Amino acid sequence: MIRTGIAGASGYTGVELVKLISNHPEASLEVITSNSYNGKALTEIFPSMRGFESLVCEAFNAKDLAGRVDLMFLALPHKVSMEFAPQLIEQGIRVVDLSADFRFTDPKAYEGAYQPHSALDLMNESVYGLCELFRDKIRDARIIGNPGCYPTSILLALVPLIRENLISTEGLISDSKSGVSGAGRSLALGTHYCEVNESFSAYKVGNHRHTPEIEELLSQAAGTPVSLTFVPHLVPVTRGMISTVYATVNPGVTLEKIRAAYDKYYMDEPFVRLLKQGAFPAMSHVRGTNCCDIGCHLDPETGRLILVSAIDNLLKGAAGQAVQNMNIMFKIDEKTGLDAVQTPL
Amino acid sequence: MIRTGIAGASGYTGVELVKLISNHPEASLEVITSNSYNGKALTEIFPSMRGFESLVCEAFNAKDLAGRVDLMFLALPHKVSMEFAPQLIEQGIRVVDLSADFRFTDPKAYEGAYQPHSALDLMNESVYGLCELFRDKIRDARIIGNPGCYPTSILLALVPLIRENLISTEGLISDSKSGVSGAGRSLALGTHYCEVNESFSAYKVGNHRHTPEIEELLSQAAGTPVSLTFVPHLVPVTRGMISTVYATVNPGVTLEKIRAAYDKYYMDEPFVRLLKQGAFPAMSHVRGTNCCDIGCHLDPETGRLILVSAIDNLLKGAAGQAVQNMNIMFKIDEKTGLDAVQTPL
Amino acid sequence: MIRTGIAGASGYTGVELVKLISNHPEASLEVITSNSYNGKALTEIFPSMRGFESLVCEAFNAKDLAGRVDLMFLALPHKVSMEFAPQLIEQGIRVVDLSADFRFTDPKAYEGAYQPHSALDLMNESVYGLCELFRDKIRDARIIGNPGCYPTSILLALVPLIRENLISTEGLISDSKSGVSGAGRSLALGTHYCEVNESFSAYKVGNHRHTPEIEELLSQAAGTPVSLTFVPHLVPVTRGMISTVYATVNPGVTLEKIRAAYDKYYMDEPFVRLLKQGAFPAMSHVRGTNCCDIGCHLDPETGRLILVSAIDNLLKGAAGQAVQNMNIMFKIDEKTGLDAVQTPL
Amino acid sequence: MIRTGIAGASGYTGVELVKLISNHPEASLEVITSNSYNGKALTEIFPSMRGFESLVCEAFNAKDLAGRVDLMFLALPHKVSMEFAPQLIEQGIRVVDLSADFRFTDPKAYEGAYQPHSALDLMNESVYGLCELFRDKIRDARIIGNPGCYPTSILLALVPLIRENLISTEGLISDSKSGVSGAGRSLALGTHYCEVNESFSAYKVGNHRHTPEIEELLSQAAGTPVSLTFVPHLVPVTRGMISTVYATVNPGVTLEKIRAAYDKYYMDEPFVRLLKQGAFPAMSHVRGTNCCDIGCHLDPETGRLILVSAIDNLLKGAAGQAVQNMNIMFKIDEKTGLDAVQTPL
Repeated sequence: MIRTGIAGASGYTGVELVKLISNHPEASLEVITSNSYNGKALTEIFPSMRGFESLVCEAFNAKDLAGRVDLMFLALPHKVSMEFAPQLIEQGIRVVDLSADFRFTDPKAYEGAYQPHSALDLMNESVYGLCELFRDKIRDARIIGNPGCYPTSILLALVPLIRENLISTEGLISDSKSGVSGAGRSLALGTHYCEVNESFSAYKVGNHRHTPEIEELLSQAAGTPVSLTFVPHLVPVTRGMISTVYATVNPGVTLEKIRAAYDKYYMDEPFVRLLKQGAFPAMSHVRGTNCCDIGCHLDPETGRLILVSAIDNLLKGAAGQAVQNMNIMFKIDEKTGLDAVQTPL
Repeated sequence: MIRTGIAGASGYTGVELVKLISNHPEASLEVITSNSYNGKALTEIFPSMRGFESLVCEAFNAKDLAGRVDLMFLALPHKVSMEFAPQLIEQGIRVVDLSADFRFTDPKAYEGAYQPHSALDLMNESVYGLCELFRDKIRDARIIGNPGCYPTSILLALVPLIRENLISTEGLISDSKSGVSGAGRSLALGTHYCEVNESFSAYKVGNHRHTPEIEELLSQAAGTPVSLTFVPHLVPVTRGMISTVYATVNPGVTLEKIRAAYDKYYMDEPFVRLLKQGAFPAMSHVRGTNCCDIGCHLDPETGRLILVSAIDNLLKGAAGQAVQNMNIMFKIDEKTGLDAVQTPL
Repeated sequence: MIRTGIAGASGYTGVELVKLISNHPEASLEVITSNSYNGKALTEIFPSMRGFESLVCEAFNAKDLAGRVDLMFLALPHKVSMEFAPQLIEQGIRVVDLSADFRFTDPKAYEGAYQPHSALDLMNESVYGLCELFRDKIRDARIIGNPGCYPTSILLALVPLIRENLISTEGLISDSKSGVSGAGRSLALGTHYCEVNESFSAYKVGNHRHTPEIEELLSQAAGTPVSLTFVPHLVPVTRGMISTVYATVNPGVTLEKIRAAYDKYYMDEPFVRLLKQGAFPAMSHVRGTNCCDIGCHLDPETGRLILVSAIDNLLKGAAGQAVQNMNIMFKIDEKTGLDAVQTPL
Repeated sequence: MIRTGIAGASGYTGVELVKLISNHPEASLEVITSNSYNGKALTEIFPSMRGFESLVCEAFNAKDLAGRVDLMFLALPHKVSMEFAPQLIEQGIRVVDLSADFRFTDPKAYEGAYQPHSALDLMNESVYGLCELFRDKIRDARIIGNPGCYPTSILLALVPLIRENLISTEGLISDSKSGVSGAGRSLALGTHYCEVNESFSAYKVGNHRHTPEIEELLSQAAGTPVSLTFVPHLVPVTRGMISTVYATVNPGVTLEKIRAAYDKYYMDEPFVRLLKQGAFPAMSHVRGTNCCDIGCHLDPETGRLILVSAIDNLLKGAAGQAVQNMNIMFKIDEKTGLDAVQTPL
């Protein structure tokens, strides 16, 4: 039994982790912490869990956690994570951090998007937890930077094609769409029901913080600096994410080669599903699952390649991938706790 | 391992059953049948299941099922069920029928709401599968009439109070609200997105077919004919049901007595949750669960009692309760396959 | 041209008034005030209006308004209205107040639901602005208490039947459902998109502040104290309201008499539509209109009468009725500015 | 008074036209036709209009219309329009056709996307009704091909920049998102509430019929063949459309030049609103209006230009633009009947 804890259990990502670990046959949830709800039962915050969950929120205290948990999930805002993570590592507790604090390799890229980093050694040590692409490094990592939701949807579609040298690294575009839970549970006019409902909008055009994260990973895959035009949009649904990615194939590259590359990387992956040719994903097809669905289309005349990639932003885009990382880190079957059958309803 | 099959697997209730049985640790799904999709893989109908499910729809043939399954779930339209069920029983296969065909005791009540019944003996034998209230009879039944969604939400709130003689059987009202999945997957203008979205409406005021079903059960509980004013409404959500029930307490009955009656019936029930005083249910709190949440309020001056009861119409209102019935019939822990922790998202 | 102003133009009711007056052929919008957005252009708050509106929010100052406007709409929180209204009246400016402050006759009823009243004389003078029922008094009023949304939907259905002595004043129930805009534009967890979406819930069961307002008006109509069981619910739509009202007809009263009473009151009313027998309203049928649609059903055996009444909570339930009141007060055609054809989309 | 008629009044576009013409101060609605509802009152199909509309659907008969109407709006499926339009023109009735039948210049392009054309002369004569860009030709046209919704949103953003030679005609992409009403009122699994709700999906990737329409117009603007990568998506809202368009600026082109080009074309246009720098459109900001909102962003390093363009698909994308065309054709103020102030609710 893997003994785990969750810091920040009262947010949408945190409570999704609570659900996954509570239902996980080989992990136990020993402790949850919450700044805003310290001392409160989780069922007071989320009455839906009454009768199924009896945890009470504690204040975060790393020393107190020593010996109680093998791994902590940090579902905290960036900056808080980089303060807490080193304390946990010092106690011998492994960490899966869901903030941006341990996703970057380049301190300047991090600082440009967020703020100066106060735990550079640990940032340097951390492994980017995109499971299908970095499994080997994840296995023995002490700390994982769990990927952002947008990066996950985009990188799973692009990295195999870049690594196999099938597409140009110039002119990449991702037109991405996210459900509202991605904005978290904090109050803001932008998440007021009447402002979101029956609307759809682009936001942070040209300057979303996930851009440098994606570009760093694309550049690693290419072995050369790659830039991406990234436009996120808000969709009036609670959960779900679709990235429509535009690229240009290298000369001579056919659709068959594209599909073969995906097969090479994902044929045996339980959570990445290449759709049959002509089919494209819907948010409802991945909701409640840890899957990433990918559909592709190539215009042979122009060489324009269209990739459509869908995930559940709270699962493969956050809590689900975090659990997948834990499964890898503790050498159990990667699907454990993530393989329930789901319907589109 | 309980070997099961599902007839009508391509509808919303059918596919919810597929999900539950697929995730059930002590039951196996041996066969699915579908009239409209005979020969098709389930994943062609519901792409969300790709990689997690590999069943192919068969045509229904009772003889063919003998020896393959211990129990069949019938997620079929009424009238079809009463044709298929006797064939299954003859083959020694137990049946949980989700149509209205085996819910009634009184053939005239059934005929008034639907059509003449062609399997009266079996109808007579069948047990009404409202688990918390008829568990003893369910245990050894060959055939279960799985309750309607509206009846489930209303009867769980009213029957304990009637049996304990706490409320008047006169003047009962249920103002009920259902999500759109209750109308099924068939095409109709009334379920076109643009007609439902941003609207809310009353329908079948005074003549919904669930009324005689509810009244028969209320009358049994009271030992005297009881009538109910029942007004269903359509809510623009996919799943969920709330019944706001109005009754009058008998002289001298206090809120404490009401709550004590619920405690007596439900204290040890895993799927009925009496909310603490002052709290009332939300559809999101029961979505994805087999729970019925009940809140109550009494105006001591007028004696008016307000009960608010919430279920997921596809689970406790259909497929979830069907599985709960199966668990009872096969003497396994009633919560098996129905106890995953859920969040409100 | 009626010169008007709107205090509190940045809220949902306020901006709906801005829209109506801007489109009104016989009224001009001279001034808007906003506490939170003083000095800001309305189009900065609501970019949808860019190019169609050029007003800038001012601070409220009654003396400053003298001579500039003939009528002020107060779309303010209760308590603020009772402070501002007397200042306006003093300047000879007529007032339509959309808060609760001038809806009550009985100071105790007001105080019980809100707080002590600081302008009792004006409260005493004010006229309840339910246009179809109090038109004669509205005409020459200096100050109108514009009815609450729930009261409007309920009173339009019940008052004619009470005045005509067709129903019992005992045991009245209204099970009401409102869209989210009724909760206003302020931030609260209860209006966060992810908390409201795909849910439906009862709230303030047994103690909503609109109850004493409704009861006061019902009692006036009956000439005797009447109490009402009132349960409001939240529907995941932006705008719309439906009240399902339950009553018992007096002995000998038929459906024909009920319909005849409605015809007597509403036959010539442009904004109250009695649906043909068997039809019931939908929120989408009144959205964008100042209409109240009423459908009715009588069970002749039990005498139980079911009334379903629908309005747009922001129009007939607030801003639309406020403009209708203005039209009456200034003796112009009551439909002016409120008669555009709408579709259900 | 312009005397008009609407063929196909029972669809979503048709009824939107009914609304606009009914509210139009200088046009009258003399006749509506409907194949499926011949002989039925419009209020039976759309109860929301009861009391405001009294039209009855007729069968279409061109000879019968002679002398009764000056202009017919055809809100019909393609192929039906090309049958009806010549009959109307023969009777001296001008036509605004909302199908695709009269939008093309090149018969092969039309035939490739639809079917062989049976009224080539009229197709040749017809004017593409994108008002802001072809106003001069529209004025005296006998027949207008009213633009598709996707083409409208894309062409208004791109054509000025192409005409002014500011962007490359290579590598153009439009990632477009539409509300569900664009799919019409016919029944299909793809518009069933439970299939659309809480989802979002790409469809017809690489082969949507609007592509050749857009490409023909882009090519005209460029004076050279232009191709466009076009990916439409379905958003769970009733109305609204956003196109996120990606282009590359020509060497030396700055954001200022882009904005200056828009100003040149649209500064005096009432229905195209260039947003201030840094702002981007939302569907809710144009809902209910005939406006197209455009926001833009240029990455000076890569030369990548991002344009976000929003319309109400039923208004500027269909019925609103049709009325705007009528206003131009009959030399009245172009804003007439389209200038009501709207809110985002």
